[in-house]
Amino acid sequence: MNKIVECVPNFSEGRDRQKVEKIADLFRGREKVKLLDYSNDADHNRSVVTVVGEPEALKTAVIEAIGKAVELIDLQRHQGQHPRMGAADVVPFIPIKNVTMNEAVALSKEVAEAVAERYNLPVYLYEKSASASHRENLANVRRGEFEGLVEKMKKQEWKPDFGPTEPHPTAGAVAIGARMPLVAYNVNLGTNNLEIAEAISRKVRHIGGGLRFCKAMGVALHDRGITQVSMNLTDYTKTAIYRAHEMVRMEAKRYGVPVVGGEVIGLVPMEALIDSAAYYLGLENFSVNQVLETKLME
Amino acid sequence: MNKIVECVPNFSEGRDRQKVEKIADLFRGREKVKLLDYSNDADHNRSVVTVVGEPEALKTAVIEAIGKAVELIDLQRHQGQHPRMGAADVVPFIPIKNVTMNEAVALSKEVAEAVAERYNLPVYLYEKSASASHRENLANVRRGEFEGLVEKMKKQEWKPDFGPTEPHPTAGAVAIGARMPLVAYNVNLGTNNLEIAEAISRKVRHIGGGLRFCKAMGVALHDRGITQVSMNLTDYTKTAIYRAHEMVRMEAKRYGVPVVGGEVIGLVPMEALIDSAAYYLGLENFSVNQVLETKLME
Repeated sequence: MNKIVECVPNFSEGRDRQKVEKIADLFRGREKVKLLDYSNDADHNRSVVTVVGEPEALKTAVIEAIGKAVELIDLQRHQGQHPRMGAADVVPFIPIKNVTMNEAVALSKEVAEAVAERYNLPVYLYEKSASASHRENLANVRRGEFEGLVEKMKKQEWKPDFGPTEPHPTAGAVAIGARMPLVAYNVNLGTNNLEIAEAISRKVRHIGGGLRFCKAMGVALHDRGITQVSMNLTDYTKTAIYRAHEMVRMEAKRYGVPVVGGEVIGLVPMEALIDSAAYYLGLENFSVNQVLETKLME
Repeated sequence: MNKIVECVPNFSEGRDRQKVEKIADLFRGREKVKLLDYSNDADHNRSVVTVVGEPEALKTAVIEAIGKAVELIDLQRHQGQHPRMGAADVVPFIPIKNVTMNEAVALSKEVAEAVAERYNLPVYLYEKSASASHRENLANVRRGEFEGLVEKMKKQEWKPDFGPTEPHPTAGAVAIGARMPLVAYNVNLGTNNLEIAEAISRKVRHIGGGLRFCKAMGVALHDRGITQVSMNLTDYTKTAIYRAHEMVRMEAKRYGVPVVGGEVIGLVPMEALIDSAAYYLGLENFSVNQVLETKLME
């Protein structure tokens, strides 16, 4: 694959395995589309698919999968812990290789237009694809959930970007957009004092005056008797992992607390880690084209 | 490609581009073989091919390329700065993915046996494939070069592992073996005093009591007025890049000399860099299967 986009659609079905399989099947056996992972969570009653592909092939697969979710999932009977507003709930496109963010945004809009027309489904564009700043944050778009959609859509500021101005009776509405890959990076602190982890988190994160593309919160790891600064780096090309690491370390010094470990949760783009290696090893002019695996994928 | 082996054959022709192309052609247009790079050096009168592939497919291609080199290159007329003993001079196999070192050794021996029989070419096994410890080091195997082969082969300790006990009249002999990927990593020092770079190199490298899989020498970067500890890490899975980096830094402290940069030369396996990132970021239980690109290559 020359150009690669990732898509991580979330569907509001996490209990009926047959339905989840039927949706996942739409990503199987296709040229230039590769299903990397899918998992379902019964408590959340939700499943998450991770798929990559060339833009056009991926587009076709995602449109069909959204259609299958509209067909199989009935939000009027849906209960689960996770907030949701649609059968296909949220569909982010993530540029991975030889694809710009603008191209990913364009792709998300093509999918949005197609599913609105084909399935009579209201679509909100979010994140980098949002048509207004108050629609960028998914939590705002989804506030009120499926049950609140009828009233929400009557307001001009929540008119859908595509499709009808009332929710699909069983499938609700879907949020579609483009975003950068998320890096979930946690730094462990050698203290069981959650207040310290929380204080550090507040300083490191964007809203507290910290790093621009960093969300953070303090978490207690009760089993180990330690705490953690749990971070989401929303643009690793601008807020690098090493910078988040060093900033946590810097703030921890004030409390005499050591950094005792860390973890990356889930998938991480190679470049995010190699950038950190290059920083610590002091590499000048290093290019990912020098990585053997980059050559293998060409 | 599921199993991947790299091969970096060196051929004793760096001036006649047509001959180099004819050899490189044997790695083109094959299923499960990918030519990554090839370059020729007129001063050395030598060319280096970098190719990866699945073991069986790669074997066939390498055997044919060695045959083409035997056909086209006449060592009796060869002059160049680089030591050489054969038309195909040295052919290392390097395990990259889902291949053990033992498998790479077995592959090198199959190629050795085939080219000895097919082209009546004497073969020395070297590095991990060597039949005796004095044959592991390529410099020992090649000492005396093409011109010294007749006498060398008369000695029992230099009887070829495969093929006749006298050199091929025009193609000499070839060294074939398996080895780990080399990582060429240089650390720049904020001093123009070459003696300091040399002293640090002696302490960091294996023969001086340093790291087991590290070769090192001091180099002056005249243009920049600085010096460098230039290293070859011959097994990055055991002597990690970060460890070499920290050891240079540690020794440099004694002279009050700062580390001011560094570089990786040529290709480097992803894992070698990610291992260093994981060290500095303090990652617990990180797996390369969490790297998106690993999933893409599956």
